[in-house]
Amino acid sequence: MTPVKVFGSVAFTNVARVLVCLEEVGADYEIVDIDFHVKEHKSPEHLARNPFGQVPAFQDGDLMLFQSRAISRYVLSKYRTDEVNLLREGSPEESALVDVWLDVEALQYDPAMSSVFFQHRVVPALGGMPDEGIIGESVEKLRKVLDVYEARLTKHRYLAGDFLSLADLSHFPETYYFMEMPYAAVFDSYPRVREWLEDLFARPAIKKVVSLMAKDFSG
Amino acid sequence: MTPVKVFGSVAFTNVARVLVCLEEVGADYEIVDIDFHVKEHKSPEHLARNPFGQVPAFQDGDLMLFQSRAISRYVLSKYRTDEVNLLREGSPEESALVDVWLDVEALQYDPAMSSVFFQHRVVPALGGMPDEGIIGESVEKLRKVLDVYEARLTKHRYLAGDFLSLADLSHFPETYYFMEMPYAAVFDSYPRVREWLEDLFARPAIKKVVSLMAKDFSG
Ligand SMILES: N[C@@H](CCC(=O)N[C@@H](CS)C(=O)NCC(=O)O)C(=O)O
Ligand SMILES: N[C@@H](CCC(=O)N[C@@H](CS)C(=O)NCC(=O)O)C(=O)O
Repeated sequence: MTPVKVFGSVAFTNVARVLVCLEEVGADYEIVDIDFHVKEHKSPEHLARNPFGQVPAFQDGDLMLFQSRAISRYVLSKYRTDEVNLLREGSPEESALVDVWLDVEALQYDPAMSSVFFQHRVVPALGGMPDEGIIGESVEKLRKVLDVYEARLTKHRYLAGDFLSLADLSHFPETYYFMEMPYAAVFDSYPRVREWLEDLFARPAIKKVVSLMAKDFSG
Repeated sequence: MTPVKVFGSVAFTNVARVLVCLEEVGADYEIVDIDFHVKEHKSPEHLARNPFGQVPAFQDGDLMLFQSRAISRYVLSKYRTDEVNLLREGSPEESALVDVWLDVEALQYDPAMSSVFFQHRVVPALGGMPDEGIIGESVEKLRKVLDVYEARLTKHRYLAGDFLSLADLSHFPETYYFMEMPYAAVFDSYPRVREWLEDLFARPAIKKVVSLMAKDFSG
């Protein structure tokens, strides 16, 4: 069987999200680098994979997908076993709760985190000055999300319930970068959230993707 | 069987998204109004339904859900029949494509639309001046999305393929309000997108929800 292909460098959070799912299910995959320096992501070949000219894109035989969370669902469903069922397929209630908390990650957690990252890391790299007002607002939004998480994780081991799911895994890439920024201190007030993150970051699949990310940066 | 409950007024786009799904599958449901004027959405009762103090929330017996797209998935899956299968369950490829285009709606289309709506309608209602710079940027983002949609809908009848799905339906609430704003003219350059929208707005389920929205506004 030809391995599935992931297009895009692992240093991108949305690519890392897909890779951690592939690692969790033990799938055979190939990473195809897309060279942003030569604008390969806006080439006709890549636009045929992802019409927005972004990464990741994903190929499984004739099937082409984009959007990291949609790809993650496909991967977790395709390689699901009785032991590794990270969408909780088969239980309408549990899988609905996975969907709820995955939407929270995508629509509430990620935008707050990305906005801080953009101001703190991307703006200076482009020669600009970070907008401290935007950073402050985004950190405030993040705090509101973390308040909810702290309460939820005090009742349940993971976000969707007492089982690991895509909803948890999906948080790792943005959080990984956030933890290297001075704003990481906001997490100090959330002991259960920190425990949950330590649990996640100790998983072999996440350790593996983190090591690929580190390698990607060192060239 | 007790009907499922949707908490929140139909005038809210995220509530309307859920209602249109309930209408498409012909489910029995009850709308429970949440009174924003008395901050009922931040009451302990409502926070137990939706910890972010937002609408919609949803109840089916013991199961409580929030996040309009997660609720929509649950509804479409629960009431699925061979004829009405708007997530394309049973086909891994087609359902993955529904997920892709639903993520595009949630992460690309909706943020651009909401930002225009917020500046044009919410800011003045709060006594402020709309930021024309933000509106211009958001309309530009919307145009980029519509470029992709026009190409996609030239190849396929609907976004995920030649079948109607949640990915299409999910666009209706934001678009409904957008069409009443002066910026609606951006759609003039996208004939296939307009055809697709006409097709959607002619569906009995959408007409029904639109009539509920109109009633909600008139008191
Ligand atoms: N919602 C998309 C976002 C994809 C995205 O923003 N990718 C970034 C890298 S993390 C990218 O390709 N940016 C280049 C560009 O937008 O031109 C997903 O989850 O896959
Ligand atoms: N991503 C959520 C968004 C929910 C949302 O933003 N709801 C708005 C009304 S459309 C709300 O309740 N706003 C009140 C608030 O945030 O305090 C969903 O899809 O349900």
